[in-house]
Amino acid sequence: MSGSYDPAGFRPLTFHDAVPGFREGTDTPRAYLERCLGVIEAREPVVRAWVTLNIEGARQAADAATARYKAGQPLSPIDGMPIGIKDLILTRDMPTEMGSPLYKGFNPKQDSAAVQALRAAGAIILGKTVTTEFGMSHPGPTTNPFNPAHTPGGSSSGSAAVIGAGMVPAAIGTQVVGSVIRPAGFCANHAIKPTYGALNRGERQGFSQSHFGVHAGSQRDMWQVAWEIAQRAGGDPGHPGLYGEPEPRPAVKPRRLVVMESEGWPLLDGATLDGFEALLGRLRDAGIDILRRSDSPLIEAFEEGIGDSLEICRDVCGFEQRWSLENMAALHREGLSDSIYSRLVLAREMTLDDYRAVLLRREVARRSFAAIGGLADAVISLSSVGPAPRADNQAKDSGITHTTGLPAFNAPSSVLGAPAITVPLMAVGGLPVGVQVMGQQHMDAPLLAIAAWLAENIPPVVVA
Amino acid sequence: MSGSYDPAGFRPLTFHDAVPGFREGTDTPRAYLERCLGVIEAREPVVRAWVTLNIEGARQAADAATARYKAGQPLSPIDGMPIGIKDLILTRDMPTEMGSPLYKGFNPKQDSAAVQALRAAGAIILGKTVTTEFGMSHPGPTTNPFNPAHTPGGSSSGSAAVIGAGMVPAAIGTQVVGSVIRPAGFCANHAIKPTYGALNRGERQGFSQSHFGVHAGSQRDMWQVAWEIAQRAGGDPGHPGLYGEPEPRPAVKPRRLVVMESEGWPLLDGATLDGFEALLGRLRDAGIDILRRSDSPLIEAFEEGIGDSLEICRDVCGFEQRWSLENMAALHREGLSDSIYSRLVLAREMTLDDYRAVLLRREVARRSFAAIGGLADAVISLSSVGPAPRADNQAKDSGITHTTGLPAFNAPSSVLGAPAITVPLMAVGGLPVGVQVMGQQHMDAPLLAIAAWLAENIPPVVVA
Repeated sequence: MSGSYDPAGFRPLTFHDAVPGFREGTDTPRAYLERCLGVIEAREPVVRAWVTLNIEGARQAADAATARYKAGQPLSPIDGMPIGIKDLILTRDMPTEMGSPLYKGFNPKQDSAAVQALRAAGAIILGKTVTTEFGMSHPGPTTNPFNPAHTPGGSSSGSAAVIGAGMVPAAIGTQVVGSVIRPAGFCANHAIKPTYGALNRGERQGFSQSHFGVHAGSQRDMWQVAWEIAQRAGGDPGHPGLYGEPEPRPAVKPRRLVVMESEGWPLLDGATLDGFEALLGRLRDAGIDILRRSDSPLIEAFEEGIGDSLEICRDVCGFEQRWSLENMAALHREGLSDSIYSRLVLAREMTLDDYRAVLLRREVARRSFAAIGGLADAVISLSSVGPAPRADNQAKDSGITHTTGLPAFNAPSSVLGAPAITVPLMAVGGLPVGVQVMGQQHMDAPLLAIAAWLAENIPPVVVA
Repeated sequence: MSGSYDPAGFRPLTFHDAVPGFREGTDTPRAYLERCLGVIEAREPVVRAWVTLNIEGARQAADAATARYKAGQPLSPIDGMPIGIKDLILTRDMPTEMGSPLYKGFNPKQDSAAVQALRAAGAIILGKTVTTEFGMSHPGPTTNPFNPAHTPGGSSSGSAAVIGAGMVPAAIGTQVVGSVIRPAGFCANHAIKPTYGALNRGERQGFSQSHFGVHAGSQRDMWQVAWEIAQRAGGDPGHPGLYGEPEPRPAVKPRRLVVMESEGWPLLDGATLDGFEALLGRLRDAGIDILRRSDSPLIEAFEEGIGDSLEICRDVCGFEQRWSLENMAALHREGLSDSIYSRLVLAREMTLDDYRAVLLRREVARRSFAAIGGLADAVISLSSVGPAPRADNQAKDSGITHTTGLPAFNAPSSVLGAPAITVPLMAVGGLPVGVQVMGQQHMDAPLLAIAAWLAENIPPVVVA
């Protein structure tokens, strides 16, 4: 046992169930905020999830929300909700430092589209959460809320940790490879990395497979945050934005699920594999068909299609970020970590035709996923190759380090632009492990209905 | 006669024909630059095309290029080419003021992807060219190089004017609605607005139909600038980038052209219409079939598909820029022109479903264009509804002003994401009028071969 996570006893912070009290006057957004600040005060010295807190601004916003509820006119179901924003994303009242000394104090006084939408919905932008350097590998100071010797995951390290620590009910993260779902799994979050383009990335349009996602203590809060952003800010330019309804759909029991092995399978630790197989057993016991790669040549073709997702991510993102890394290297080479610089060195070798070739491989992977769309209601997999590794005991390979855990189970949904939702359904060695479901593009709402069924009906698997 | 443009006598500045002299040592990039600076010194007081000139930096870069030619090792066919950059686009050594007082002195010390690529190819980033406010309607101080009482067009006002004035051989512009092709036509440029996504827009990914384009004094320089950018910086994230070869293809005589009337047709002034019909007569005389909307129900369907392109542009761009305009309005309302602010007011009325509906209309327009792909080698049309209007005599309608000319002939290629090339094939009242050809997406290189045939074989039409 290296951690303190007990799925039966863990009670993350939720917001939707506080709203009736706001309406009735037995509770207020200001009081809710003060409770959050109390948890932050108690736990932040060890968890270190926040880069910046705007307590004064949050209190003013909470008082305004309190007045709106008193007047019977809240702006949305998330009016008064304290939210953390990953420190890659612009906020007009706080710096955006991107986990890099190069951006110390950087503040263009603009709100990213999603942040603007959250404010318009009445949410309280409480602070900025720690990210790894530019959302890539070099980690920040955050620790896992269930054991400070372990990583919270990355790159949305702080956004995952603030949920695991019960500091706020929701936080915004971003994922290019595995930066929402993996840390969310490590920290017992509910989290969604929606369909590519579903949530407006504002100023952050530079990758063709990055996403804004939502970390939360409950599926309802998670969905409502995503929904309220999309309604006000839309999706990315040219994309239709998140489809669904304002309320999450009722739970739907899946008839059939496809297990995704991906590049993660051979890297699984034994305890996590045992736990996942036990979970699949519980699903079968509940009458759900479980299809494996040996059950259909289409599933085998899908596994082959996504079988080099990590390399696709590396090359797509390397080429796409080359020019901005070159800018930073020219300005201040010593302000970049060796890990980031090694990505630039790799990307410099790429030609335009190399990039076109990897886009084609990505397109082939997407076709292989579309081809299994009719086989089952969703794909099921793990959110990581095991529980959060120790922060002081990381394998470092040739320059590209993975000090916040391996994204081998996460790269496929990023490559596919497919919605993925992680559910805290396992505990391994006293640390959380997430189980993810993945659906076809734009099927975010029906996917959540399946995730809801799992959360409501399948008791978490605990492995020592 | 209100202008001084004589197509027979006009000699724009070209670069490719200077390169042999650089190689042979009879000329140098430094001497070429000094000749450009001489023209700028003579004409800039009236034309007012530049926001910033980095003469010292340009001289250093020209000396470095001179040394490379001396060593027999130029970096590319555009090594040593002085280029102007529209002042919406980041340059690490000059501010990027975007035609707005809100961005006075703004300098994040980064090169946009295309600028970085140009430097890597040896081009000399000479200065920043005037743009209308944020590339939208409120004009800057630039005058038409053929008559200072007239507009140079916009929003790439300076990039078009520097070519018309013979100050530099090439300049970078941007087009969301009509901001490359229209001003280029007003200023007797050769210019390309390539396929959507073909040239990396760097930090400017916020619109789903904006493009970087190239203004030049010759088709060869135009193409080589575009090519060298794409080879080094690629296209937009997720796009394959500009297709073709390093050299422009030899001229190809089209067998058949479709005339596009668009929303511009009823707005044409009589002299321009007469001139265009005379031009079509010359094409027919040369043996080229000219198809009109009455010749095929497919062409009629295409005209209907693009028949509300201006409204599509307004609504697509309105929704997409709403969040960033809200940021600026919140920070400094009085720093925004009424023209820009009125766009925000319109956009605030849009819901996410309104945006989805206009994306669908855009998709229908694209289908209607794809459906005529087999009918002819290209589409031909005008680049504007007439010559550049007087700068002091502009109709202003409800809030959205068009003080740099109407983009009615330009909105279709922006909506379609289709490549468009303008050729200086007409003079009306002593001012240039461009004729544009438009092709299917990714057909930039074959489209240029057709534009080359027109430029080489059709004498410009002159109307008094």
